[in-house]
Amino acid sequence: MKKEQIKDYSLKHSASHLMASAVKELYPKAKLAIGPPVEDGFYYDFDNLNISDEDLPKIEKKMREVAGKNLPFKKSETTKKKAESILKSEKYKKEILSKLKGKVTFYEHGDFIDLCEGPHVKSTKDLQNFKLMSVAGAYWRGDSKNKMLTRIYGVVFNTKKELKDYLSMLAEAKKRDHRKLGSQLGLFMAHEWSPGSTFFYPKGAFIFNRLVKLMRDEYEKRGYQEVISPQLYDNKLWETSGHIEAFKDDMFTLKIDKRDYAIKPMNCPGHMLMYKSTLRSYKDLPLRLADFSPLHRNELKGVLGGLTRVRKMCQDDAHIFVAPEQLESELNKVLDFIHYIYKDIFNFTYSINFSTKPDKAIGDPKLWAKAETALKSVLTKKKIKFELKEGEGAFYGPKIDVDIKDSLGRKWQCATVQLDFQLPNRFELTYESQSGRKETPIVIHRAILGSVERFMGVYIEHTAGNFPLWISPVQVKVMTVTDRNNKFAERIAGEMRKEGIRVELDQKSHSIGKKVRDAQIEKVNYMITVGDKEQKAKTLAVRTRDGKVKFGVKVDKFIKDLKKEIENKDIK
Amino acid sequence: MKKEQIKDYSLKHSASHLMASAVKELYPKAKLAIGPPVEDGFYYDFDNLNISDEDLPKIEKKMREVAGKNLPFKKSETTKKKAESILKSEKYKKEILSKLKGKVTFYEHGDFIDLCEGPHVKSTKDLQNFKLMSVAGAYWRGDSKNKMLTRIYGVVFNTKKELKDYLSMLAEAKKRDHRKLGSQLGLFMAHEWSPGSTFFYPKGAFIFNRLVKLMRDEYEKRGYQEVISPQLYDNKLWETSGHIEAFKDDMFTLKIDKRDYAIKPMNCPGHMLMYKSTLRSYKDLPLRLADFSPLHRNELKGVLGGLTRVRKMCQDDAHIFVAPEQLESELNKVLDFIHYIYKDIFNFTYSINFSTKPDKAIGDPKLWAKAETALKSVLTKKKIKFELKEGEGAFYGPKIDVDIKDSLGRKWQCATVQLDFQLPNRFELTYESQSGRKETPIVIHRAILGSVERFMGVYIEHTAGNFPLWISPVQVKVMTVTDRNNKFAERIAGEMRKEGIRVELDQKSHSIGKKVRDAQIEKVNYMITVGDKEQKAKTLAVRTRDGKVKFGVKVDKFIKDLKKEIENKDIK
Repeated sequence: MKKEQIKDYSLKHSASHLMASAVKELYPKAKLAIGPPVEDGFYYDFDNLNISDEDLPKIEKKMREVAGKNLPFKKSETTKKKAESILKSEKYKKEILSKLKGKVTFYEHGDFIDLCEGPHVKSTKDLQNFKLMSVAGAYWRGDSKNKMLTRIYGVVFNTKKELKDYLSMLAEAKKRDHRKLGSQLGLFMAHEWSPGSTFFYPKGAFIFNRLVKLMRDEYEKRGYQEVISPQLYDNKLWETSGHIEAFKDDMFTLKIDKRDYAIKPMNCPGHMLMYKSTLRSYKDLPLRLADFSPLHRNELKGVLGGLTRVRKMCQDDAHIFVAPEQLESELNKVLDFIHYIYKDIFNFTYSINFSTKPDKAIGDPKLWAKAETALKSVLTKKKIKFELKEGEGAFYGPKIDVDIKDSLGRKWQCATVQLDFQLPNRFELTYESQSGRKETPIVIHRAILGSVERFMGVYIEHTAGNFPLWISPVQVKVMTVTDRNNKFAERIAGEMRKEGIRVELDQKSHSIGKKVRDAQIEKVNYMITVGDKEQKAKTLAVRTRDGKVKFGVKVDKFIKDLKKEIENKDIK
Repeated sequence: MKKEQIKDYSLKHSASHLMASAVKELYPKAKLAIGPPVEDGFYYDFDNLNISDEDLPKIEKKMREVAGKNLPFKKSETTKKKAESILKSEKYKKEILSKLKGKVTFYEHGDFIDLCEGPHVKSTKDLQNFKLMSVAGAYWRGDSKNKMLTRIYGVVFNTKKELKDYLSMLAEAKKRDHRKLGSQLGLFMAHEWSPGSTFFYPKGAFIFNRLVKLMRDEYEKRGYQEVISPQLYDNKLWETSGHIEAFKDDMFTLKIDKRDYAIKPMNCPGHMLMYKSTLRSYKDLPLRLADFSPLHRNELKGVLGGLTRVRKMCQDDAHIFVAPEQLESELNKVLDFIHYIYKDIFNFTYSINFSTKPDKAIGDPKLWAKAETALKSVLTKKKIKFELKEGEGAFYGPKIDVDIKDSLGRKWQCATVQLDFQLPNRFELTYESQSGRKETPIVIHRAILGSVERFMGVYIEHTAGNFPLWISPVQVKVMTVTDRNNKFAERIAGEMRKEGIRVELDQKSHSIGKKVRDAQIEKVNYMITVGDKEQKAKTLAVRTRDGKVKFGVKVDKFIKDLKKEIENKDIK
């Protein structure tokens, strides 16, 4: 990330210096490595520092002390030679220095001095609203061949309120952690024998399949056609597509029949083969091929976790083959589709990023320019505001990404629309134009939920597991007060099931209080307690998730209201 | 297969001798290898014989000549030493002889003599209704390190009518070959870069997904719960399950994080982990976990083809965890489920095989005996006739297989029910019994369609691609006579789509005759031609697949009838 893209760069950077000065006062033998601002806050890496999270309050106290002294951040410029003598006891700093040219700059406050480009805030007294978050290990220069250093993470804000809001957001996020809720609600599990691949329990599989069905239903309305493509391909495919060149490290590879194969990390190249397998005419375009096949990517084992950091995922993936004159109208349709899913169905606010050619790009720079112009023009014409992310495109083309904002205000990148002039050329795809000429189609890669697993993870945190009725794995739980009520409970549960309502029956020998508490933990939408009174009156006592209870509800009225709610919640 | 399991063993065996004698007369330098009867007919392998299918009529002619001579098949017994001198010029026969002990028997007719146990028919004149089918290469003793020999396949029957029926069945089967129809109907494709994995085009994916939906809907009614499990597992899993011991050669393996992994060939071990992940009580049983995950098995590249010989497949797989006292009732339910799908939905006749402990079995022989007794007892109590297949069980337990008979009378093995006392032990699965003790559940592995791909292949051939309405990818095709009719055609297609009917519109500039012919090749259920007359009368001309045309059909009546047919065909 570039300097200017980081919010409150100087504030964070100064807090990092402040922390380093406190550490050096408390642990004079600690050696400085690097201490940059990052999106969420800042960190500093130290060698020769053996501390744990328990030591952070002590460091914070020292930081507050230094901040109270109102020490100015002073800049100075000097030669490399003088710099060397300033940094004589800091071997990591000297290593950094050795790679610099010409004059170098330092920033100092009090007794602390650091090789640094700045900028910084005026004085340490501007640094009041900080908190140290955690201690972690980090390799020098991020290379596992180097020594493991000690990294301290912190956050800093301009106001006390911002800090407080951030900390309470974190506390709330912790409660909603989808890994925790995934286990509490019985949605999924992980196992060390398949790191990064999710085991979906029945309730999790229900939500997964319901999301797939949501997309399938839309596909039917929007002229997409679902295909199913293989998972293992000879490297000839990946050589043709360019994945070997640009994506090899992220692929799982194996030998089959003495040849090199890879498990697919993406559906695109397989879809190119399907396009190519038969003659295509301009009348067949736009051809929208969708696919929910599992994909595998070799993420580092250390970063795997939950549904958002996985090795196995399914995307709601589609590749749209268009003639150049169809490009703009098709991109518009895709953007409308994204709006429908995120706004109309899920009621998220979202923002758009536009990412351009990365360093690892393949293909002709002219085609890149053409693709970037096309994408940008659609956004501009549609008057959609976007943030420019230079160099963050896919290796085969520029892209539009959609960040959704969850109920805690956190941003998650989900949908993606990528424009590709490269693959159709590499696979020599053609269609016969109206005038009978062979033309090359353009490919739009797009996923709306993105990875279904990842979206599910985000959605669990967004809703805190309080799923709306249409996607809730258990909509109603019917609980008996005593065994005398079993038959009546079974009858009403049966009636609801017949109407397609997902209902569970709790006839265990526990008390009704315990049964209700269990159902609340499971975040069931409606809890129905059935006792002698209800049985006699043939009505229901209905409790909502937020604890409201309604007595004397007639069964058919309840079913009717549920069905209405299911229907409406599909489109909020 | 054992001698007594092969129908018309003597007849086939004698025809094989007859063929060998004809070959030796025509090609005296040919050397005899082996010539056994097989289920479909017979073959003989020869060395030093360079022929092709074109030479078969000549050999048949010679066979008829020899058959006409009414030569008796004569048996003789002799010592190994004398046998050696008889076979002095036949090196393969001598190799077979070298492994025999004691006296050996020969059979001869005319000048031809062969080392052979018999039995045979009385005379060559009993061999009238034969046909040679093909020439193929086959390694001596089936080992690719040995020399490639020439194999001639033939069939033989007791009556002329049987031969005629068989040959016309073959001709019909050739027309219905699902690979041919798969391409003609645009259902799927194959590609050399992913051998054994199917690329399903939209129409094929529709059928695939419709079959999955059929099973899902039943799962809901029958108390199954769908899960989604990973595809890549550390070999620790396969060591625990015993797959490394008994199934290793059939698995695709790879290195991840410097450890040995395999792509799953079966879902079972993953489901064991899911069972084990939480405490289970007797109240949770039977627990029926279903999974449609893709599976990969390393079939030999040479035998791959179509949907029936694949490396990638999805099974309608489920593992049912039961307490011993639930075993019988659960097996009954599974057999009822099989009957419902094959008889009530697809209207197949089917037969049952019961397969016992194979050589490669793992686990305690006592558990094997227990499992075999349990399965057999259910079949017996249910008065289901079965064929015993000794030694053909799965490596972890005995099984019941279901052979379905297609419309050409061919048998296909599809459903399977396997009883497993091994995996629950190996994974140390338990549940708490009513009395609070830890008990081990039994696992029933079962698939009903079997592999969805394979079933689809069988079903395509069974129906010759004339799918009933409920599973047909294109139910109706609306074709315009001239461009004047486009609007009306679009309107009625739209009305049908709104009612959930799968309709395609053909507004191409071709003649209506060509459009109808195209729709017939695509085997669309109903073809609607829309001309000025229909447009004026606001009615339809409806043509069925068998060429009947009904004029003046009202749109809403047509839709109503279609919906009724869709409903009914679900259950024939």
